[in-house]
Amino acid sequence: MQITILAAGQGKRMNSRLPKVLQPVARKAMLAHVLDAARALQPATLCVVYGHGGEQVRAALSAPDIVWAEQAQQLGTGHAVQQAMPWLSDDGAVMVLYGDVPLTRAATLQALAEAAGTDRLALLTVDLAEPKGYGRIVRDAAGRVQSIVEEKDADAAIRAIREVNTGILCAPAARLRGWLSRLQNNNAQGEFYLTDVIAMAVADGVEIVTQQPAHEWEVLGVNNKTQLAELERIHQRNLAGALLEAGVTLLDPARIDIRGELVCGRDVEIDVGCVFEGRVELGDGVKIGANCVLQDVKVGEGTVIKPFCHFESAEIGAAGVLGPFARLRPGTVLGEDVHVGNFVEVKNSQIAAHTKANHLAYIGDATIGSRVNVGAGVITCNYDGVNKFRTVIEDDAFIGSDSQLVAPVTVGRGATIGAGTTLTQNAPADALTLGRSRQLSLTGWQRPVKKK
Amino acid sequence: MQITILAAGQGKRMNSRLPKVLQPVARKAMLAHVLDAARALQPATLCVVYGHGGEQVRAALSAPDIVWAEQAQQLGTGHAVQQAMPWLSDDGAVMVLYGDVPLTRAATLQALAEAAGTDRLALLTVDLAEPKGYGRIVRDAAGRVQSIVEEKDADAAIRAIREVNTGILCAPAARLRGWLSRLQNNNAQGEFYLTDVIAMAVADGVEIVTQQPAHEWEVLGVNNKTQLAELERIHQRNLAGALLEAGVTLLDPARIDIRGELVCGRDVEIDVGCVFEGRVELGDGVKIGANCVLQDVKVGEGTVIKPFCHFESAEIGAAGVLGPFARLRPGTVLGEDVHVGNFVEVKNSQIAAHTKANHLAYIGDATIGSRVNVGAGVITCNYDGVNKFRTVIEDDAFIGSDSQLVAPVTVGRGATIGAGTTLTQNAPADALTLGRSRQLSLTGWQRPVKKK
Amino acid sequence: MQITILAAGQGKRMNSRLPKVLQPVARKAMLAHVLDAARALQPATLCVVYGHGGEQVRAALSAPDIVWAEQAQQLGTGHAVQQAMPWLSDDGAVMVLYGDVPLTRAATLQALAEAAGTDRLALLTVDLAEPKGYGRIVRDAAGRVQSIVEEKDADAAIRAIREVNTGILCAPAARLRGWLSRLQNNNAQGEFYLTDVIAMAVADGVEIVTQQPAHEWEVLGVNNKTQLAELERIHQRNLAGALLEAGVTLLDPARIDIRGELVCGRDVEIDVGCVFEGRVELGDGVKIGANCVLQDVKVGEGTVIKPFCHFESAEIGAAGVLGPFARLRPGTVLGEDVHVGNFVEVKNSQIAAHTKANHLAYIGDATIGSRVNVGAGVITCNYDGVNKFRTVIEDDAFIGSDSQLVAPVTVGRGATIGAGTTLTQNAPADALTLGRSRQLSLTGWQRPVKKK
Repeated sequence: MQITILAAGQGKRMNSRLPKVLQPVARKAMLAHVLDAARALQPATLCVVYGHGGEQVRAALSAPDIVWAEQAQQLGTGHAVQQAMPWLSDDGAVMVLYGDVPLTRAATLQALAEAAGTDRLALLTVDLAEPKGYGRIVRDAAGRVQSIVEEKDADAAIRAIREVNTGILCAPAARLRGWLSRLQNNNAQGEFYLTDVIAMAVADGVEIVTQQPAHEWEVLGVNNKTQLAELERIHQRNLAGALLEAGVTLLDPARIDIRGELVCGRDVEIDVGCVFEGRVELGDGVKIGANCVLQDVKVGEGTVIKPFCHFESAEIGAAGVLGPFARLRPGTVLGEDVHVGNFVEVKNSQIAAHTKANHLAYIGDATIGSRVNVGAGVITCNYDGVNKFRTVIEDDAFIGSDSQLVAPVTVGRGATIGAGTTLTQNAPADALTLGRSRQLSLTGWQRPVKKK
Repeated sequence: MQITILAAGQGKRMNSRLPKVLQPVARKAMLAHVLDAARALQPATLCVVYGHGGEQVRAALSAPDIVWAEQAQQLGTGHAVQQAMPWLSDDGAVMVLYGDVPLTRAATLQALAEAAGTDRLALLTVDLAEPKGYGRIVRDAAGRVQSIVEEKDADAAIRAIREVNTGILCAPAARLRGWLSRLQNNNAQGEFYLTDVIAMAVADGVEIVTQQPAHEWEVLGVNNKTQLAELERIHQRNLAGALLEAGVTLLDPARIDIRGELVCGRDVEIDVGCVFEGRVELGDGVKIGANCVLQDVKVGEGTVIKPFCHFESAEIGAAGVLGPFARLRPGTVLGEDVHVGNFVEVKNSQIAAHTKANHLAYIGDATIGSRVNVGAGVITCNYDGVNKFRTVIEDDAFIGSDSQLVAPVTVGRGATIGAGTTLTQNAPADALTLGRSRQLSLTGWQRPVKKK
Repeated sequence: MQITILAAGQGKRMNSRLPKVLQPVARKAMLAHVLDAARALQPATLCVVYGHGGEQVRAALSAPDIVWAEQAQQLGTGHAVQQAMPWLSDDGAVMVLYGDVPLTRAATLQALAEAAGTDRLALLTVDLAEPKGYGRIVRDAAGRVQSIVEEKDADAAIRAIREVNTGILCAPAARLRGWLSRLQNNNAQGEFYLTDVIAMAVADGVEIVTQQPAHEWEVLGVNNKTQLAELERIHQRNLAGALLEAGVTLLDPARIDIRGELVCGRDVEIDVGCVFEGRVELGDGVKIGANCVLQDVKVGEGTVIKPFCHFESAEIGAAGVLGPFARLRPGTVLGEDVHVGNFVEVKNSQIAAHTKANHLAYIGDATIGSRVNVGAGVITCNYDGVNKFRTVIEDDAFIGSDSQLVAPVTVGRGATIGAGTTLTQNAPADALTLGRSRQLSLTGWQRPVKKK
């Protein structure tokens, strides 16, 4: 099995600088979806025919297993496959896929390959309620495919046929090479159509078989942003459906977005409006509140994430309580039963078990022990304008509200920092450390008055 | 009228540790929905047949009016009802409901009970567009119910019948007791089917009447998370529809979630993406911005809540302005015209009329008077690591930005606290109180340079 | 062409204090939508017939081009048009529109006007799948409109007609004046029906022509909040569709709300759950994260806005990075490559290129230069309780964390402010300025113990 993916189209109707096949579904280029499905078939050769925006496409998706064939001019689908042929051997079959038809399942392609074997032409067809505009599959009385008739050439009887061509096919390689070499472009568009090989196969007495995908969305192509949005929704609905089947509770399957991989334990509950990007793992019993955005996050079992959290590249221990309005940035590692509350940002920091930072705080480049209480408004001053330094807070410390810890600095085990302290030197263990001005009251003082 | 609710099923396909009948719709166990509908009929006896996860079910929903009947082995619906019979008298009728059919309206059950009276067997049936898989209601030429024929036993004519059995029925108690005692389990599953009593009723010459629910969703059961999500959506759509009918403006009825009771005054407007939990009361003219989460909150008339607010167990006065990004936690009571702005958290505090805390602040365990201005970054230090203390701020005080009020502490009426003050002692009324270091400038100072 | 808009209805079923025609679709009064469509036809006279809540309606929508005609009593649609006739001349045609039918496109009205010309009666009709309840368009064998028959007067043949009257029509002015003067109210409601002029036109031998809108939603009227919500969704779907056609990437077209004008450059991407109000302009390549709310904002090209941002009346330069959880308030102007991060509020401030304020800060009434670093927790103290003052921070300054800048105050070019400083006097350029207490540690100190 050899696979070629046609990915040279410009996609003018996308109205975009990004080449069409790089337009994303679930934040992954459409062509990458097709490559994934193709790779599942373990093809001997995987050839991508590129053209418009080719440099961008190759830069985005290059991989050792891809052979790139340039189609310098776009002269039709038949012409595109011709560009791939020099890279393909005459042994076995060639499957033709499309970089803008992203949701075909590997199982469907596998079935198509098996139907083709080494000497049959296998077409992927689909029955449409509204076949208008598509090439109809015309069969003889015995049900054998005779031809594909385009809309403009179809009479009323043929227009009534609901089975249409998807363009995806699998053909014996040597035969295909021969047919492609005989394609003509004497048509209105002046293009070489891959579809024309069907008639040649019939003429050559090659058996034509058909397969249908389990779902119509598997063969939908994308030509504009409306269709892209439709496929995004179909794909998200499928992902949500798979989570439900696995036993995840989704408060609204139409309002979850997964752009990557979401792995859930048992009894996970996800509220409305959440977005998952990259790889997210949620342990048993994890609850995600409404409107959270999680990217590349691992969450330990039993942890509760309240609404409006935004986490990136973080690891969260079991039995934690986070949010609402918490933000974890890359490099955050939280132990068991850590609480991070509202308007708290944590970045590149390790926080050990049972520590709490519940209110308005910035924790950056810090190593924090267990059972520490980080008061409201505490800020680690990790940046002097050019360098970043670490703050170390040992177990059982109590950091009073609105303190600033000017790194590099260490707060010893069991130390207490008074509210409002600017800590510039290490704070000894078990002691109270503070820096505070004397409180004065000016009783004769007059309040400002409104300026005119 | 006596009611028995079958609630013993395991719900293996839910993929959950939580017993099936405790799976929630709108955050309330399905069984609790059924109990609510049942109670509306004021039954003489309300018997729940429990089995799988019985301890959990009883712990979650025990109430003085419920009689619990154990079904130790799950041997079919007929067997389940048998377990209830010892608790039920022979007087009047028995209605059979299901713990996993949560959305039946009380009015539908009332009509069923009335149709049954004391001597008829009343079946709740429904006409389905796709009846496949359900037991069909077979009637004679006069329209009298003759039997219920299961899919597997149905011929083409019977399969064409669209009226199906919902399982919900109401039968004369003494008759039902007799029929149940004669049930056989000589079928493929080896189970005792409640449905078999229909044939016995026909044989005994008991009149069979039918009722249909006003909506198909009233008789939908839940066997997996997909169906649970579907019912959640149906229920939410119904709740949104009721709000619209009452004159509430919803920017998108498909994007509001109500899990409890939402009581709205006149001219209330709710923007997209809001979630309401527990009991929420919104006064006349209240506006709720996009993406708010409110739980157990009472909001006075004319108050405007901007997007991204998260309130729990709070009482908000009239004409207030809150958010965006405001968080009220339990025990918050706000007077009239109070403003709480972005990144401000309030907990267990009373704030009197016309007071403003508009920017980045933590107000915990505080009593604040009227016309107070709480500056940006102000923090009440209410916690010393083990005890919590109160802060009192009297009327007309002005709390400068970034001040910390170390409780217990009182700021007197009309007092002004200078920016950045750590207030550890009471601040006298009408005076300016501050604690501040002398400002120094080191002109010879060199900025840090990048470390290599 | 003269246009009259009937806008006198009470809308009792809206359950609202707001007059029906002021109920908003996309935050704009329904009547304002109709006025916009009407104005596109450049009518010689634009007459609004008002009644219920007339003062409110006139106050909300008065404009020099509107003539207001009062309908003191609501005696039917014919009576309503009669109130407009004194303001209209006998030259040309009169088009009748409805203040509660907000989504008719100007192109549809233009076509209706052209069909009417100066001597024909043109009706806007629509074919409905479920015509029940509407007046049917009855035609003769030649297809000429003969009459409009109301549901209650229709026999089975007429009920089967799917073409119905929308009420929108365009008639020769002098003819219309005559017909209206002859209207009778001898019907069950005792009202004067505009529809009755059709029969008069037939009797007078005036040619009746019909036009149909391109979309059924163009003629949907609003009588209650459910219908208002439906039209809101249709309108939003249309707006989203137009963005997609223009090449904007929408992650979910069903979850974007536009209430005003959203102008997008090339390759703009908008994630789920965003709300746009007023006039928003997004430059080329702008990305808007999930759940943002933007009102009257201009965003320069290439700027990335992360989730949970709330911006009002702000101008943002190119290549910026904002959010998550950033709030810009009116008067914010950001230069190129400005970063505003989580839990940062900016108000009435100008911030020049390459400046960063990434964490928990309040910047109000400030003028900030280029390449400034505003540390976490920094607060401009711009308000003394009665007056507001400005803070000036010159280029290349570094403002240490948790500093308070007590305005009016200036930080010189290249100055550094130490963490935790309360800055009350100007800070000289290039120097380090700080105000800080000596750090003390009390080693004999005992932690508080739990009170009983």
